[in-house]
Amino acid sequence: MSDFYEKLREYAAYTDSGLDVILPKRDNYQKEIYEAMRYSLLGGGKRIRPVLLFVTAELFGLDVETVKPFALALEMIHTSSLIHDDLPAMDNDDYRRGRLSCHKRFDEATAILAGDALLTYAFEVAADGASGLITKAVVSGNTELARNASKIVGLLASRVGTEGMIGGQVIDLKAEDTAIDEYEHDTLCRLKTGCLLTIPSEISGLIAGRTDTPEYGLAVDYSKSIGLAFQIQDDILDVEGDPNLLGKNIGMDDVDNKTTFVTLYGIDGAKHKLEELTAKAVADCRALMELSSCNKESAQFMLDLAEFLLERKY
Amino acid sequence: MSDFYEKLREYAAYTDSGLDVILPKRDNYQKEIYEAMRYSLLGGGKRIRPVLLFVTAELFGLDVETVKPFALALEMIHTSSLIHDDLPAMDNDDYRRGRLSCHKRFDEATAILAGDALLTYAFEVAADGASGLITKAVVSGNTELARNASKIVGLLASRVGTEGMIGGQVIDLKAEDTAIDEYEHDTLCRLKTGCLLTIPSEISGLIAGRTDTPEYGLAVDYSKSIGLAFQIQDDILDVEGDPNLLGKNIGMDDVDNKTTFVTLYGIDGAKHKLEELTAKAVADCRALMELSSCNKESAQFMLDLAEFLLERKY
Repeated sequence: MSDFYEKLREYAAYTDSGLDVILPKRDNYQKEIYEAMRYSLLGGGKRIRPVLLFVTAELFGLDVETVKPFALALEMIHTSSLIHDDLPAMDNDDYRRGRLSCHKRFDEATAILAGDALLTYAFEVAADGASGLITKAVVSGNTELARNASKIVGLLASRVGTEGMIGGQVIDLKAEDTAIDEYEHDTLCRLKTGCLLTIPSEISGLIAGRTDTPEYGLAVDYSKSIGLAFQIQDDILDVEGDPNLLGKNIGMDDVDNKTTFVTLYGIDGAKHKLEELTAKAVADCRALMELSSCNKESAQFMLDLAEFLLERKY
Repeated sequence: MSDFYEKLREYAAYTDSGLDVILPKRDNYQKEIYEAMRYSLLGGGKRIRPVLLFVTAELFGLDVETVKPFALALEMIHTSSLIHDDLPAMDNDDYRRGRLSCHKRFDEATAILAGDALLTYAFEVAADGASGLITKAVVSGNTELARNASKIVGLLASRVGTEGMIGGQVIDLKAEDTAIDEYEHDTLCRLKTGCLLTIPSEISGLIAGRTDTPEYGLAVDYSKSIGLAFQIQDDILDVEGDPNLLGKNIGMDDVDNKTTFVTLYGIDGAKHKLEELTAKAVADCRALMELSSCNKESAQFMLDLAEFLLERKY
């Protein structure tokens, strides 16, 4: 596993330095917004969405550089959603990643605009990345890549919108103080956490031109499993996690009367589901390792990642 | 002018029906968000950004259908910004277009998410529109169009972000209770209102492959003039407009101690600037009419539009 941790740190550092470069400090009339965006974006985090994009890209034989703009966009979209989620009218969280949340460090108006700006900049960076791929593909006569690359930003936006992450947040808000059944809760998780963890495999598949292959199906299934596992672990950590390691208070779901995997299935039931999903993800990785068309080291990393997420304390 | 009003209504109706089609009611777990998005998006409005896109497209010999996805995206982005602008932490406006603002009709959390969702869906619709153009261009071997179309979404996002509309809102918030000088105020207007009124000409120019032509320069200059004129008229109407026609309270800038064209130049000075800019925009239209490469009727419509905006009461 020591190789795994080194690679994980490497991917995260590559993400961090990339974000730092594309969103520098500015000294213009709008400098406050850049400060707020950088505060939230560069304040730590597991960078799990970029990591998934980098590793699935390598799994399919692509360079990490090729998918970098989309990885940075994913992290900006995720951060944007955290900033808005923390607002008083939403989850009203004062802390995030062990520091004051954006609206506490700055103010509510700045936090609203910083979230809007990160979301917008994410689409700008992704669109410019896609444009670069399309231009290269057109020049070299690779019409399949040009067409596939042109689909990335629309697909990404659909995974973010009302039938994706934001749709999940809508159900999540409803789930406070209103009991929802397991079908609605399943939709909530699939949308809120799942969509942004599955899109990395989808983007890698599109750029590599592999969406019709068995490895694509396995990578997408793997992403869905760890997406759900990720949410279950979140719910478990909110009950029995260490606030110091988490960088936020625990017991918040209980305060909000939220329907979670723990309220639906009990703590043991939730843990059992988590283990089942992890085993499923691990099986997908073993199947990927059997395919000569895939990078074995990447599949091994994905396997280690599934087990790492099972054990995570933060 | 009767032709002008008929055409203006036609463009607006084309926008409204397009928005109604791409954002239908839904009966799923997330139905509340669709309701809120539709409430704000289909609640009237001049549709000035779509109108500018349609008319510049026709000016450059394109069909309105070709630019339709981008027109709908522009209106969704504009509406998204209005929803967030009206929030208590921002301008705290209870009314918009003569009806309750989104957060008053629904609640703050729903309004935050509806704004996020409209912004995201705008990029989805624009990206899918660009993808359609790129695919067609690649199939027909039109590499210039493929490359130009691939630039649209990134350019659009840059006009929305921190160096565009959102950047303008950042300065606008600062301008409440803090006097800003004319340079900062100029940047505010150029970004907050100007960017979304100039991007229509830019998109039309890109798709028509005319960004190197004199007509492109004239259309962009025209857009900049009416963008600034639009903001000046807004400031004047806030002083001497009719609340019933405006559908919102007047005197709000004074309450907020906002720096406006009226506070900087006086009401007569502001009116003089408005007339100057309108004359400049009209001159650009007359120059466009002289060019055989341009659709004369479109140039005439643009001229009428500039004069319409000068006279507008709402």
